[in-house]
Amino acid sequence: MIGAEPRVIVAIFGEKDAKLAQTAQDNGADLIELRLDLYPLLSVQTLVDTVHRVKEVCRLPLIGTIRLKAEGGGFQGDEGERRRMFLSVLPLIDAIDIELSAAGIISEVVSEAKAQGKTIIISHHNFYRTPPDTELETIANSAKQAGADIVKLAATANSLDDLSRLLLFSYTTPHKPISCISMGELGAPSRFIAPLFGSCLTYAHLSDSTAPGQFTLYELQERLKIVFPWSAP
Amino acid sequence: MIGAEPRVIVAIFGEKDAKLAQTAQDNGADLIELRLDLYPLLSVQTLVDTVHRVKEVCRLPLIGTIRLKAEGGGFQGDEGERRRMFLSVLPLIDAIDIELSAAGIISEVVSEAKAQGKTIIISHHNFYRTPPDTELETIANSAKQAGADIVKLAATANSLDDLSRLLLFSYTTPHKPISCISMGELGAPSRFIAPLFGSCLTYAHLSDSTAPGQFTLYELQERLKIVFPWSAP
Repeated sequence: MIGAEPRVIVAIFGEKDAKLAQTAQDNGADLIELRLDLYPLLSVQTLVDTVHRVKEVCRLPLIGTIRLKAEGGGFQGDEGERRRMFLSVLPLIDAIDIELSAAGIISEVVSEAKAQGKTIIISHHNFYRTPPDTELETIANSAKQAGADIVKLAATANSLDDLSRLLLFSYTTPHKPISCISMGELGAPSRFIAPLFGSCLTYAHLSDSTAPGQFTLYELQERLKIVFPWSAP
Repeated sequence: MIGAEPRVIVAIFGEKDAKLAQTAQDNGADLIELRLDLYPLLSVQTLVDTVHRVKEVCRLPLIGTIRLKAEGGGFQGDEGERRRMFLSVLPLIDAIDIELSAAGIISEVVSEAKAQGKTIIISHHNFYRTPPDTELETIANSAKQAGADIVKLAATANSLDDLSRLLLFSYTTPHKPISCISMGELGAPSRFIAPLFGSCLTYAHLSDSTAPGQFTLYELQERLKIVFPWSAP
């Protein structure tokens, strides 16, 4: 049943990562996104230690994300470095989130993730606007072609119509499973409404927001309870 | 801007009608629906007195509704009686809500309402299911043809997909302005989400619910505040 079980992802990073992961798990989050781009640049060993530290206290599935600055992240190294980071962390995590725009490394990272049986989220972020439907369709289709198990589209709403339109796209696109997020103040309701329209993942934070319009886990759960009153928190 | 200003209607009836109308006004409702079908059968004089009683304490626009049993109402008289009731109350109210299925009287009541400059809501209720899109389109089109200023579609959701589909219909239909309501437990979120999809009216109650899934005015306002955090309550 579409949207019957919205999956809540808590994005975490930083010194308190393990504590945050534990808190997320204790409070009913479904998955953890480890934002490896929001740490000071990590050596492979520190990277691996970071993931182990989180896994020690948290049994939730882990998504590893190393987001580029252009798509709202903090990664400042070059693509070779990013590829190495992805590959060294892969065996330890359950899924990766990589940008469709990561042209230089996406093919190798996706192939290796597939070979290791990991789930592949291919994402696209637009911090300025919500592209027209035809463009959304092209992006989703390209993400599928590039090997996405789950397509993720995050686009800024400059009007309520942008919000409605992205929800609609989520409902009508053949490129399921998909996660559609309408960013910004006007798009914020997408975070608890989009699951009704077939969007399978919604993101929250515990301390620092990782995207405009993102709610805390508690705020998101309160809102999801209102839209899905019959599903357990 | 679509949905920027969801209009909240409070449905009232019964002995405490005037008090309820006043409370609705004091608490930020936009319109009052006077459910004239939910009184014990009224003489023309009592009917007129009822409307006057409400108008004395409440300046909000009044919608007069005399709903048939088959469409969720309490009216038990014949169509001739219902026509007389509509015509005698018309000069006192701002809008009427009449069922598309009221084949015997709709044409005369709508003509007279138009002649008096009243707003005409033509409604359709389905307490069993949400008709397929083509049927929704036919109903909305017929309501427009019959003279509706506002089309109102209330249909029971048997799945979350019924809810999503009715919201989508609200967004895509050319027959605007429209009010789409997904009834029942699964459809309840439509009452605060549908305004995002171009549905112009949403209903609440203060004491007794007049439809499955309907919230109290306070509950509805709390939910609308979450979806439209920037608009005044």
